[in-house]
Amino acid sequence: MRTLAATETGSASRRSNAPQTVLRVAVAGATGYAGRELLRLLARHPYTRVTRLMSSGRLEKKGFPIEHSHPILRGKFDVLCEPLSLEGLVPAEVDLVFLATPHETALDLAPLLLNRNVRVVDLSGAFRLKDAATYPRWYGFEHHAHQALEEAVYGITELNAASIRQARLVANPGCYATSVILGLAPLLKKGWTDPSAGIISDSKSGASGAGRAPSDKLHFVEVNENCRAYGLFGHRHVPEMLQTLGLAEKDFIFTPHLLPITRGILSTIYVRLAKSRSAEEVAALYRDFYSQAPLVRVLESGLPEIQSVAHTNYTDIGFALDRDGQRMVIVSALDNLGKGAAGQAVQNMNLMFGFDEETALL
Amino acid sequence: MRTLAATETGSASRRSNAPQTVLRVAVAGATGYAGRELLRLLARHPYTRVTRLMSSGRLEKKGFPIEHSHPILRGKFDVLCEPLSLEGLVPAEVDLVFLATPHETALDLAPLLLNRNVRVVDLSGAFRLKDAATYPRWYGFEHHAHQALEEAVYGITELNAASIRQARLVANPGCYATSVILGLAPLLKKGWTDPSAGIISDSKSGASGAGRAPSDKLHFVEVNENCRAYGLFGHRHVPEMLQTLGLAEKDFIFTPHLLPITRGILSTIYVRLAKSRSAEEVAALYRDFYSQAPLVRVLESGLPEIQSVAHTNYTDIGFALDRDGQRMVIVSALDNLGKGAAGQAVQNMNLMFGFDEETALL
Amino acid sequence: MRTLAATETGSASRRSNAPQTVLRVAVAGATGYAGRELLRLLARHPYTRVTRLMSSGRLEKKGFPIEHSHPILRGKFDVLCEPLSLEGLVPAEVDLVFLATPHETALDLAPLLLNRNVRVVDLSGAFRLKDAATYPRWYGFEHHAHQALEEAVYGITELNAASIRQARLVANPGCYATSVILGLAPLLKKGWTDPSAGIISDSKSGASGAGRAPSDKLHFVEVNENCRAYGLFGHRHVPEMLQTLGLAEKDFIFTPHLLPITRGILSTIYVRLAKSRSAEEVAALYRDFYSQAPLVRVLESGLPEIQSVAHTNYTDIGFALDRDGQRMVIVSALDNLGKGAAGQAVQNMNLMFGFDEETALL
Amino acid sequence: MRTLAATETGSASRRSNAPQTVLRVAVAGATGYAGRELLRLLARHPYTRVTRLMSSGRLEKKGFPIEHSHPILRGKFDVLCEPLSLEGLVPAEVDLVFLATPHETALDLAPLLLNRNVRVVDLSGAFRLKDAATYPRWYGFEHHAHQALEEAVYGITELNAASIRQARLVANPGCYATSVILGLAPLLKKGWTDPSAGIISDSKSGASGAGRAPSDKLHFVEVNENCRAYGLFGHRHVPEMLQTLGLAEKDFIFTPHLLPITRGILSTIYVRLAKSRSAEEVAALYRDFYSQAPLVRVLESGLPEIQSVAHTNYTDIGFALDRDGQRMVIVSALDNLGKGAAGQAVQNMNLMFGFDEETALL
Repeated sequence: MRTLAATETGSASRRSNAPQTVLRVAVAGATGYAGRELLRLLARHPYTRVTRLMSSGRLEKKGFPIEHSHPILRGKFDVLCEPLSLEGLVPAEVDLVFLATPHETALDLAPLLLNRNVRVVDLSGAFRLKDAATYPRWYGFEHHAHQALEEAVYGITELNAASIRQARLVANPGCYATSVILGLAPLLKKGWTDPSAGIISDSKSGASGAGRAPSDKLHFVEVNENCRAYGLFGHRHVPEMLQTLGLAEKDFIFTPHLLPITRGILSTIYVRLAKSRSAEEVAALYRDFYSQAPLVRVLESGLPEIQSVAHTNYTDIGFALDRDGQRMVIVSALDNLGKGAAGQAVQNMNLMFGFDEETALL
Repeated sequence: MRTLAATETGSASRRSNAPQTVLRVAVAGATGYAGRELLRLLARHPYTRVTRLMSSGRLEKKGFPIEHSHPILRGKFDVLCEPLSLEGLVPAEVDLVFLATPHETALDLAPLLLNRNVRVVDLSGAFRLKDAATYPRWYGFEHHAHQALEEAVYGITELNAASIRQARLVANPGCYATSVILGLAPLLKKGWTDPSAGIISDSKSGASGAGRAPSDKLHFVEVNENCRAYGLFGHRHVPEMLQTLGLAEKDFIFTPHLLPITRGILSTIYVRLAKSRSAEEVAALYRDFYSQAPLVRVLESGLPEIQSVAHTNYTDIGFALDRDGQRMVIVSALDNLGKGAAGQAVQNMNLMFGFDEETALL
Repeated sequence: MRTLAATETGSASRRSNAPQTVLRVAVAGATGYAGRELLRLLARHPYTRVTRLMSSGRLEKKGFPIEHSHPILRGKFDVLCEPLSLEGLVPAEVDLVFLATPHETALDLAPLLLNRNVRVVDLSGAFRLKDAATYPRWYGFEHHAHQALEEAVYGITELNAASIRQARLVANPGCYATSVILGLAPLLKKGWTDPSAGIISDSKSGASGAGRAPSDKLHFVEVNENCRAYGLFGHRHVPEMLQTLGLAEKDFIFTPHLLPITRGILSTIYVRLAKSRSAEEVAALYRDFYSQAPLVRVLESGLPEIQSVAHTNYTDIGFALDRDGQRMVIVSALDNLGKGAAGQAVQNMNLMFGFDEETALL
Repeated sequence: MRTLAATETGSASRRSNAPQTVLRVAVAGATGYAGRELLRLLARHPYTRVTRLMSSGRLEKKGFPIEHSHPILRGKFDVLCEPLSLEGLVPAEVDLVFLATPHETALDLAPLLLNRNVRVVDLSGAFRLKDAATYPRWYGFEHHAHQALEEAVYGITELNAASIRQARLVANPGCYATSVILGLAPLLKKGWTDPSAGIISDSKSGASGAGRAPSDKLHFVEVNENCRAYGLFGHRHVPEMLQTLGLAEKDFIFTPHLLPITRGILSTIYVRLAKSRSAEEVAALYRDFYSQAPLVRVLESGLPEIQSVAHTNYTDIGFALDRDGQRMVIVSALDNLGKGAAGQAVQNMNLMFGFDEETALL
C-alpha cells in the first residue's frame, strides 16, 4: 500500500477534492418508493445531510422513525419523519427540498418554497410540461402556478445540464420519459430520422414505477407471472417526451407494459432513418452525443438489459439495424427508481450545488 | 341432483357420454382466489353444473359476468355473479353450496343452509375447530352455531373419507394445516414419535394463500425478492393441526413464511422418532398409510418441491433421516389453492356425491 | 385406434362411460418442457393412451420412469421413457407420434413415420416452411425431405382446420408465430391494412419457450428481475409468420423479449389501417373471424394479459385504436407451452381423429 | 449550505479523516457472482484500486474486459480480466488478493501468496475448518496446506475483529454460516441455552448462492415459482457453524432451502432457553452483544425480512418467544452476496488495513 497523489487514485479521486461543506436536504414524500431510494442514495452521499423527512401519506400526528416505513433504512437517519409542513423549510435551515409527493401536493408546495428562496427538485409531474394548458388533459388538474412553471427546468440531466446548474426548480423527468428521450435524442436532435414516418416506443417497467399505494392491480398475485400493456394512446409521460424531442402526437406511439420485477425499464424503440446508415455511423453518432455524459453508456455491440442497470444510475443504450440500414430498433434500459427517479434527482442536485455529477451514484 | 338430458347440461354437455346426472352447485365467495380455482376445477368437472355464483366482496347491486373478476374464466360460465343471498339456495335448485367467504359469513350461512337441507363445503375456518370455546382466541369471534359445529366433519379427505361421504357440512381444512397434518399423520397415528420431544413445522407459502384483498404487505414490490416469517406462536391454522394430530400446544411450533410465488406450500417438519428406524421402515410406514390415497404421493427417494405439485391436487411427501435414525425431517408439498383449498373441496364433493375421488383433479 | 374394453384403458378407464376407443400415442422428446406439458394434457385426455415415451436427450441406455425427468408426472404413466428409436412405431401399435425433438431429429423421423403410414404432429420447425430453400438461412440445415414438406399442413388450428383434419403430418406452429398470426389474421385476410406501411410485433415470452437445456443465459439469476430483447431482425419464427400472413420481410419487424416468468407470451402489434375504423367495426371483424374458434377469445373491452391465458389453451386478443381510428395496437396473449406448443398439438390431434376440438384443453 | 467541521458531518465524517493512500487489490475469480459483487463494492471504495482481475473459469487466452462477463460493470474498470496466474502477485504490486475461486484453487493459491507475503481474503471454504482432517468428508479433498490453515483467521467480523486486523489470511465465512452464527452467538456464547435440547436452523437462500455455473437445477424454469429443501444432514456449511458456535453435530440440524429470488438468506432458528426469559431480557442480551457491531441490527420489535437487507451489508436479527419464555425462534436475515460473501470480505479488508469498518458498505 503506497501513498498516491490524489490525481492518481482513479475512482477515489473524485471525492478527494470535494468541498468540506454539507448540503442540508429535506425530503417531502419520504415514505414512497422514490423517497426510499432517495434516502438510500443520500445516506451514501458524502456532502449532504438529511435534516427533514416529511410524509403526507401517513396519518401519524407525531413523527416516526423512517425505518417504520422503510426497514432497509434502519439506523441510518436520526431525524423523525413528520407530517408534511412548510415549517422550517427556509434557507437558514435547508438548502434543497426534494418533492417526492403526489403531483397536486408538489404543485402547491413548489411555488411557496421558491418564494422563500429554497431550491427544489420535484420528482412529480407538476412542472414538467411547459404549456400549462395541457395539464387538465394529462394530469386532470388546472395548473395555477404559472410563474413557477415558467421558471422550472426540465431535469433530463444529459440534455439540460447548463440550465439545471442554475435552476431553482428542477422538474425531474418521468421514468419512462427518461428512457425514451435518451434513446431517441441523438437521432432527433441531429435530424437523422423523419418523424412523420412514425416512431413507436414499446416500453416495459417494473412494478415500483406504479407507486406504493396498494391496489387490486398491484397485488403480488396479479403482477407475478404476468405481463400486461396499459395506458395505450394516453400515458401521462407522453407529453414530456413530445415536448423534449420536438415530436407531434400523431407521429409517436408509446405503449407501457407492467413487468413482474421490482425495478427497471426497458424501452424498445422503432424508427426509420431518413437514409441508410451503417452500424458504425449510428454508434459514432450516439457515442459523440453522449461523450460528456458519464452516466449514459452506449453499447458498441449487444443490447442493454434491465439487470445491467438495476440498482445503478446508468442508462444503457444499444441498437440494431436491418440489412437495409434504414429500419432501426433502439433499446434503452435504466432503473426506474435510479435514473428514472431518485438517481436523476440526486444527479441534478449534484449539478445544482457543484458536486461531481456522479457523487453517490456509483 | 336430477337427471338431465345431455342437451341441457351446459359446459358438461360437450362430454356427451358422461353420466346423465348433473350436480347443481353454487359458489359463494366466487371473486376470491379460492373461488377462482374452484371455478376452474368445476368447469372441468363432467358431472357438475355451476348454477349460482355469489360474492359479498363486490358492491355491484346487479349481477356481473365472473370474467370481470377472473378474466381467465372468460366464456366459461353463463350465470352472472350476484350479491350474496340465500334466495334460491334450496334443494329444489341446488345440491351443494361451496362457501369461500370470510369466516364470519360462513358462520352465519352454513346453519341456515343445513336447516334447508342443502349440503355445504365450507372453505373458511368457521367449522374447523370442534371446541366452540376456542374460537374467540384464534378467530376473534364467539361461535354461536354449536349444532352445525357438532355436525361438521373436518374435511381432510385422506383421514376422514368415511365421514365425509355422509357429511352434510364439511369443514375444508386450512392450506398449511393440510400440509402439516398429511406430513405427520402416519408417525403420530402409529405412535412412532414421542411428541413431548417437540415437533416443529417450518412452513412456506405462496402469496395467494393470503387472499385477494390488497394491502401494504401484499403489494408486489413488498413480496417480490423477499421472504419473511409471520404469525409466530399464533397462526390460526395451529389449533386444527393440534386437534387432528392429537398434539399439545406446548409440544408443537408452527412458523409460516411468505414466499415470492403465487401458489404452493412447502412444510419442513422436524421430529424425533421414539426409536431408531431405517429409511426403508419409514418409507414403508408412509406408503402403507397412504396406500388407498391416490392423491398423496410418497417419495421413495428425493424430496418434494413446490413445482411438482403446483396446479395439481397432489400432496407429495418425502423425508430424510439422520445417521442415527432418530432425527427425521419430513418435507410435505402441496398447492395451497389446490389440495390446500379448492382442490380438496372438490375432492370432498366427489366423495359426498359418489364420484370418483379424482374427478376433475387430474 | 382400436376399441378397448374399459378395463384395459389405463388412465382413461376411470371415466367409465367414455367412448370405447382409445388412441395410442407416442411422444418422442418427452423430457423437454413441451413434452412435459403434452404429457400433462394427455393424462387428462379421455380418449388417448400414451403407449411410448422416448427421449434423445438422455444418455440412459435403459428406460426410466418419466417422473425422474418430470416429478410433477409422478404416478401418471406406467410406460418407461426409452432411447429414441423407430421400433414399434408402426400402425399396429401406435396411431400418432408427437415429435417434440430438435428440428434435425424431426426432419429425419417424420418421413420415415409417414412411409410407415403413422400420423405425426411435429412440434419442431422442421416442416413449417413450405419453401425448402429457406431452411439453410433460418434453421441452418439443408432440407432434404421435400415430399414430407410438401405434404405437411401448417397446424395453426383456427386457420387450417379442414386441412388439419385430413393431414398425416401437421407442422405445429411456433409459439411466437401463433400469437402474431392469430393477432393479425383478421386484418390481413380481410385486407384492412396496407402492409407496406409497416407492421411491428413487439413480443414478450416466458423462459420455458427457450427450452430446457441449461445455459448461461437461462440461469435463474440471469433471467430473474430482468428483461431483454434478442434475435432482432433474425428470429426463426419470422418466416412462418410471413408465409402464413402473406407479408414481405421488408414490411414486418418482429422483436422477441425474454420475460422473467415461466410461461406465457404477450405480443403487442402495431399496424396502420387502410382507412379509419371505429372500435365497434374492428371488434366485429375479429368476432366474426373467430366465431367458429372456441379457443380464441376476442375481448370486447380491455386488453389481454398473460395471466388470463397461462395454463390454458386460449389465445386472447384485444386492441386499442388511436383517436384517428387508423393507428391500431393489437395485443395477443397465449401460453407458449399451451396454445403455443403442446396445447395446439393436442388441439390438432383432436381434429385429426375426430374428437371435440377442446377435449382435454379446458 | 454552510461549511461544517468534519466532526459535524454525520455519515460524511467517516470518510473525511481517511488516509490518502490507495490499496492495490487483485480479484481472482472475478467472473462469478461473488466476484461481481466484490467489484461493485470495490468500485465504490474510496481507498482501493483494483489492479488485477483474474478468472480460471474462462478459456480466453488473452485478457478481456470484465464487462463481457458482468455488463453492469461496463466502464468501471480499465484493467482486463486475465487467466489465473501468480505473476505480479507480489508485495511490490499488490497489497491484497481476494480469492473468489473454487475451493481447490484457493487451497493451492493461498499458501503461495502467504509465502510471498501478500495478504489474502479467501471467499472459498478452503481455510474455514481448523481441523484439516474434516476436509475429506465435507469438501471431498485432502487438505495439504496445514500451515496456512493454522494461520488462517475465520472471518466472521463481529466475533473475530481483533484477529482479523492482524491476519495475513482471512477465511471468509459461508453465507448460511454467517446468518446462523450471528443469530445464535449471543445465546451460545453467554450460555443461555442448553444445546443438548437440540437447535435447528431452517434456512432459505436466493439462487445466487449456488454460483454461476449453469445446471439443470438452476435453470430459471426450475427455480421460479418453486421452493425446495436440499442437502439435509449434510450441507458443507455445517462444520464451520459447529466449530464457531461450539456445538456438537448431534445437537444441531441445518436445512437449507432454495428460494426463487436472486439474493438474500433468511434463517429461522429454533432453540430452547435454559430458563424462562422475557423478551426484554433477550433483546438486551442481543443489543449488548452487538453494541460495537455497526453492521448488525437487532430489531426491538418485528422480525427481519430479506428485502430489508438485500443489496446491503447488514445482518438483521429478531426473535419471538413463546408465552412460556423458553421456546424461542430467532430470525436472521442477510444478503448472501453482501454480508454472506463479498460484503463481509470488504468489511474484513477494511479491518485488515485500518479503514473504517463500513467503508463502501453503506
